[in-house]
Amino acid sequence: MKSEIVNFIKRTIDKYDYKGAVIGISGGIDSAVVAKLCVEALGKDKVFGVLLPERDSSSSTVDDSKLVCDYLGISYIKKSISPILRAMGVYSLQPPALFIPERIKKNYVKNKWKSLSKEDTFLEDLQNKGNEEFLKGIAYYRAKHRVRMCCLYMEAEKRNYAVIGTTNKTEYVTGFYVKWGDDSVDIEPIMHLYKTQVFQLARELKIPEKIINKPPTPDLIPGVTDEFALGMTYKEIDRILRKIEYRQDLKGEDSKKVERVKKILRVAEKRNIRMVNFTPQG
Amino acid sequence: MKSEIVNFIKRTIDKYDYKGAVIGISGGIDSAVVAKLCVEALGKDKVFGVLLPERDSSSSTVDDSKLVCDYLGISYIKKSISPILRAMGVYSLQPPALFIPERIKKNYVKNKWKSLSKEDTFLEDLQNKGNEEFLKGIAYYRAKHRVRMCCLYMEAEKRNYAVIGTTNKTEYVTGFYVKWGDDSVDIEPIMHLYKTQVFQLARELKIPEKIINKPPTPDLIPGVTDEFALGMTYKEIDRILRKIEYRQDLKGEDSKKVERVKKILRVAEKRNIRMVNFTPQG
Repeated sequence: MKSEIVNFIKRTIDKYDYKGAVIGISGGIDSAVVAKLCVEALGKDKVFGVLLPERDSSSSTVDDSKLVCDYLGISYIKKSISPILRAMGVYSLQPPALFIPERIKKNYVKNKWKSLSKEDTFLEDLQNKGNEEFLKGIAYYRAKHRVRMCCLYMEAEKRNYAVIGTTNKTEYVTGFYVKWGDDSVDIEPIMHLYKTQVFQLARELKIPEKIINKPPTPDLIPGVTDEFALGMTYKEIDRILRKIEYRQDLKGEDSKKVERVKKILRVAEKRNIRMVNFTPQG
Repeated sequence: MKSEIVNFIKRTIDKYDYKGAVIGISGGIDSAVVAKLCVEALGKDKVFGVLLPERDSSSSTVDDSKLVCDYLGISYIKKSISPILRAMGVYSLQPPALFIPERIKKNYVKNKWKSLSKEDTFLEDLQNKGNEEFLKGIAYYRAKHRVRMCCLYMEAEKRNYAVIGTTNKTEYVTGFYVKWGDDSVDIEPIMHLYKTQVFQLARELKIPEKIINKPPTPDLIPGVTDEFALGMTYKEIDRILRKIEYRQDLKGEDSKKVERVKKILRVAEKRNIRMVNFTPQG
């Protein structure tokens, strides 16, 4: 698994004459794995980490990100994107949650997030469906990953480096990413791996235990982890996704969950597309 | 030409359950044409214009954009993106050009832009090739369209509107756009039309003469118009592109220009791709 990805990175960087790689380091497992693979492919001097926390980032985000960069021995910069989001008017979409203890904030926001939608928050989010408050929430959290993309490209283009993506297959097929945000990169080295395979690879690559063991989170809305948003554990969803992919018997699975995953796949596939008018013109 | 595009917009908006359309209005011909087509497809109440000028925008940008919105009778907001770019550190990449008369500024920047590259500025830009100063210039101007994309999506998502693109075929095939900037939209209604066809359509749609007659410009770097950046007139490049597309005899064309266009097509095609590692995993 490892050497094939390392070769892919090396080959692609060479082919397009990039001088190195820029990676947004979030403190999570995906960016740690991708950064490690880039270091193996290009050497640590050609890998540059960018830490982009903001007002709502978890208190451990920056520490964990620094841990990853120091462990890999790569250079990095830390830049809060809060002033950019403020200038954009993003924070005006949601009341400030300063001075509220993190644990209470998390529970409040989690419950609010769920209560905003009628049935299935994740599916309604994928379809941009909901009341005004819900749509504001969507605009609010998505702006963060888009602004991060802008910052990553600024750092990359100054150096003629490539922006390396950290989207995995579970996220991609379920639409669990921000359109024109974390999906907008030059090279995607782990998009062919389900999240559970990324965990395996992380162990193979000896990523620090602290990073492997923390609950994966998009770190966009306080308290909302990946598994909370997806409404399933990664173990479950990956098992169902693999059975669908390889046309295996789904009888052993919870049929309600299977139906939900199938619906997510249908909706996510549609959402991912940029509709181009391809009518030929004489 | 017109009715087929109007149907495409209507059909696509319905299919994905969007409630309307957001368009970045630049004061140029492409966004005027697209906005007009959206008004015909959806009605003027469902089309929302967003004007996003910044420090370096031409003095006529806002006036021309307002002219378009008023002519079409659509609602719009104007929001300077300068504070956002400043917070990102974009303006620190280039010295401020305040207090310098626009005509002098234009000539200065134009000459500087050309002098930064060794041979062919456009081709070197497409390949991210050049010295430190040139790369800074690339990071500088591209950040603007990316930030605009972020702002358009914020306005669109709040309303469950689609972001409508204004990229035409000449721009798309030659790579004359910003990756993850003006190319990042939900619906592209005129990407199948060469720029010269957009001009024809603009006359058919009765777009104000002032908008049709101004020289097309990306409005990113003072004084750098489309034809200056491309190094050819639209008439020439579209004629060569069409002959290449329809495999017609190129003997009547300037062979140096034909070679250059072919090189642009090769480089632009490569640049457009997000490289995904598609190795199947068992």
